[in-house]
Amino acid sequence: MTEQIVSLDVTDVRFPTSRELDGSDAMNPEPDYSATYVTVRTSGGAEGHGLAFTIGRGNEVQAAAVSALAPLVVGQSVPELLGDLGAFNRRLVNDGQLRWLGPSKGVIHMAAAAIDNAVWDLAGRIAGKPVWRLLAEMSPEQLVSLVDFRYLRDALTPEEALDILRAAAPGRAERTEHLLAHGYPAYTTTPGWLGYTDEKLVRLAKEAVDDGFRQIKLKVGADAEADARRLRLAREAVGPDIRIAIDANQAWGVTEAIERLRPLAPFDPYWIEEPTSPDDILGHAAIRRAVAPIRVATGEHCQNQVVFKQLLQAEGIDILQLDASRVAGVTENVAILLLAAKFGVPVCPHAGGVGLCEMVQHLAMFDYVAVSGTTENRVIEYVDHLHEHFTAPVTLRDGHYLAPLTPGLGAELHPASVADHRYPEGPVWRETT
Amino acid sequence: MTEQIVSLDVTDVRFPTSRELDGSDAMNPEPDYSATYVTVRTSGGAEGHGLAFTIGRGNEVQAAAVSALAPLVVGQSVPELLGDLGAFNRRLVNDGQLRWLGPSKGVIHMAAAAIDNAVWDLAGRIAGKPVWRLLAEMSPEQLVSLVDFRYLRDALTPEEALDILRAAAPGRAERTEHLLAHGYPAYTTTPGWLGYTDEKLVRLAKEAVDDGFRQIKLKVGADAEADARRLRLAREAVGPDIRIAIDANQAWGVTEAIERLRPLAPFDPYWIEEPTSPDDILGHAAIRRAVAPIRVATGEHCQNQVVFKQLLQAEGIDILQLDASRVAGVTENVAILLLAAKFGVPVCPHAGGVGLCEMVQHLAMFDYVAVSGTTENRVIEYVDHLHEHFTAPVTLRDGHYLAPLTPGLGAELHPASVADHRYPEGPVWRETT
Repeated sequence: MTEQIVSLDVTDVRFPTSRELDGSDAMNPEPDYSATYVTVRTSGGAEGHGLAFTIGRGNEVQAAAVSALAPLVVGQSVPELLGDLGAFNRRLVNDGQLRWLGPSKGVIHMAAAAIDNAVWDLAGRIAGKPVWRLLAEMSPEQLVSLVDFRYLRDALTPEEALDILRAAAPGRAERTEHLLAHGYPAYTTTPGWLGYTDEKLVRLAKEAVDDGFRQIKLKVGADAEADARRLRLAREAVGPDIRIAIDANQAWGVTEAIERLRPLAPFDPYWIEEPTSPDDILGHAAIRRAVAPIRVATGEHCQNQVVFKQLLQAEGIDILQLDASRVAGVTENVAILLLAAKFGVPVCPHAGGVGLCEMVQHLAMFDYVAVSGTTENRVIEYVDHLHEHFTAPVTLRDGHYLAPLTPGLGAELHPASVADHRYPEGPVWRETT
Repeated sequence: MTEQIVSLDVTDVRFPTSRELDGSDAMNPEPDYSATYVTVRTSGGAEGHGLAFTIGRGNEVQAAAVSALAPLVVGQSVPELLGDLGAFNRRLVNDGQLRWLGPSKGVIHMAAAAIDNAVWDLAGRIAGKPVWRLLAEMSPEQLVSLVDFRYLRDALTPEEALDILRAAAPGRAERTEHLLAHGYPAYTTTPGWLGYTDEKLVRLAKEAVDDGFRQIKLKVGADAEADARRLRLAREAVGPDIRIAIDANQAWGVTEAIERLRPLAPFDPYWIEEPTSPDDILGHAAIRRAVAPIRVATGEHCQNQVVFKQLLQAEGIDILQLDASRVAGVTENVAILLLAAKFGVPVCPHAGGVGLCEMVQHLAMFDYVAVSGTTENRVIEYVDHLHEHFTAPVTLRDGHYLAPLTPGLGAELHPASVADHRYPEGPVWRETT
């Protein structure tokens, strides 16, 4: 009998990060990093794990959305599912009634992400390959079949996508070797959380440089004087050759962003991340024109490929920050990588959170091997939180992510971590609520 | 003791409309029109009712999102809440953890809509006024205090909003009288559902004209030949002087929309609604440039005021179709009406669904009395579904909505209708599932 998906389990897992102000920024002052954790199982005994990242309250709403999509997965034939992951993703995103809840945005789209990622994890495990390698060994035609071109054709046609992938095909083997030997460049956000003291910021910034990072990131956007003081302290701590990105987490309007960035320019920030609403495509373009040479970056809250398409068409961004679980998983991210390649914009994935580092490294590495073919001006975000809860945590060496070798996507949590942090019944929460 | 909000109840109510293909279109073939129905109660015994509209599956996710926001309402002082509804809406939309689920889009934003609408209904009942009149009697300063300008200032400043409202103030009394005497123009979508036969389409189109409507609407976007045939039949049925709007419900890409509209132009469609993704601001602008004089309309799926701002900035729409429960309720719709007035674009609200006609009439009538000051080229959508379930259903006469006189927003369902249609335990569903 054909192997089938026999179950989809979803668990509300929350880590009490607000107790230490890890992850604090201008718009998210007290996050409890959380995961809507999804496990699919097959009749053959295989498993796949995926997740959507949230920051605490509302993770139960996210879990309810995953449950609403579960009937589209459970009972499916595994060979048919894995044989056409593009068609599967389109079914997830276009259900005739559930689509109304988005369309393709917010809770219902992140639920599609968690499931799509779990199915890619399953595909990697069945193939015995990490997902970056599974993707990098697919043919250009297979990769193009993943993309839903319905709303993309005015910016990227299937033929153009094929051309991009075929142009990158000859160097795949060589770049794979290079990746396995040297890893992929990272930057770190660890020093710069808004809740940290100046002393902690300076100490962690220096440690980051000692650890081999060539770029760090600071949160800004609350108090203007504090922004300038902290950026100056960081610049003094790391010297002129280390890139310092700054991140306002959507705190500003368009005009305000331009005004608030002016006094920060002397400290040479490399990029300004999320200067305003992630929905404001024209606003990003206006800010970018006004603040150059400071680069404009966004993406972690961009809801889907249609918004990324327009950010590129409008020349609104210098850096595209894809996210593993905001858009509909690995499948939609393949489309976003192709769009970025078409427009020549480097992708620097958003990470941190819960398991985002573990997942996005696959996308950046696939991009290097088979899409853009370069790591120039490309870095994956790194935050040293919560990796100990994953069965295959990321490995960093000298400011680089080492290529993961474990089959799958990397989002599997230790069963004990899940048991401890289940909300609200896990012991971590029972003790405090 | 100060009056407080003592409870917020949320109920999953679904109507089995898919059995008759009422509401069928190119992207939503079999909707079961549903409401996430919200009731707030005060310690003084007052009630407010609001809802978010969905089309079936996933209404339970919507209900979970309302429950997640409930702690922001329950326990609040009623005088403080009603004294600063702008501040209340900003708290609903900007909760430090729940914001991550949007921000300001999809399930969590529609939940904010249901609650915001319930609180406006409460405000209207306490004041003894229909909400259109409550709004139309607020001072320009009070109205401006409702708006969250954080992401709007590059398109609309508080000073400009005040100027718009002050300019409209002198004629308020006269327009109120006119509205009470003559009502507000409507158009009807009843003839044009995609699942209807040609014979039914022609019959209902003629009936609409006999009933006094000067505009009807047809669904298009599935089969190209059928689109042309149905539009021709409708034009022959109603003659050259009745406006026929067409609605593709997001079925097309940008290039495809332009190609599909060309053969329909000879039948003089008045507007093309939702030609492509509601997220594609630049796409709407490109389509609009290509298909003029056919007007471009969208809005029922536009997630928030930031997207409407850009549709106006990019000259992407000729008609703005606000929705009662997609954006964060009456409060955010005041901002959207002001944006539309600033850019001189007429607002023709989306309605139908469950209770949307009952709610949006208040917004259009407020716009006429106190914002744009005109009904020229403005019509409220009308669909003759499900009104019998409301305690204060809309009243139409000679193709016009009569101004509602009942205090509140009009979203209260008959208790028996709620009991019958609760999902999944109501008798309507128990008999069939």
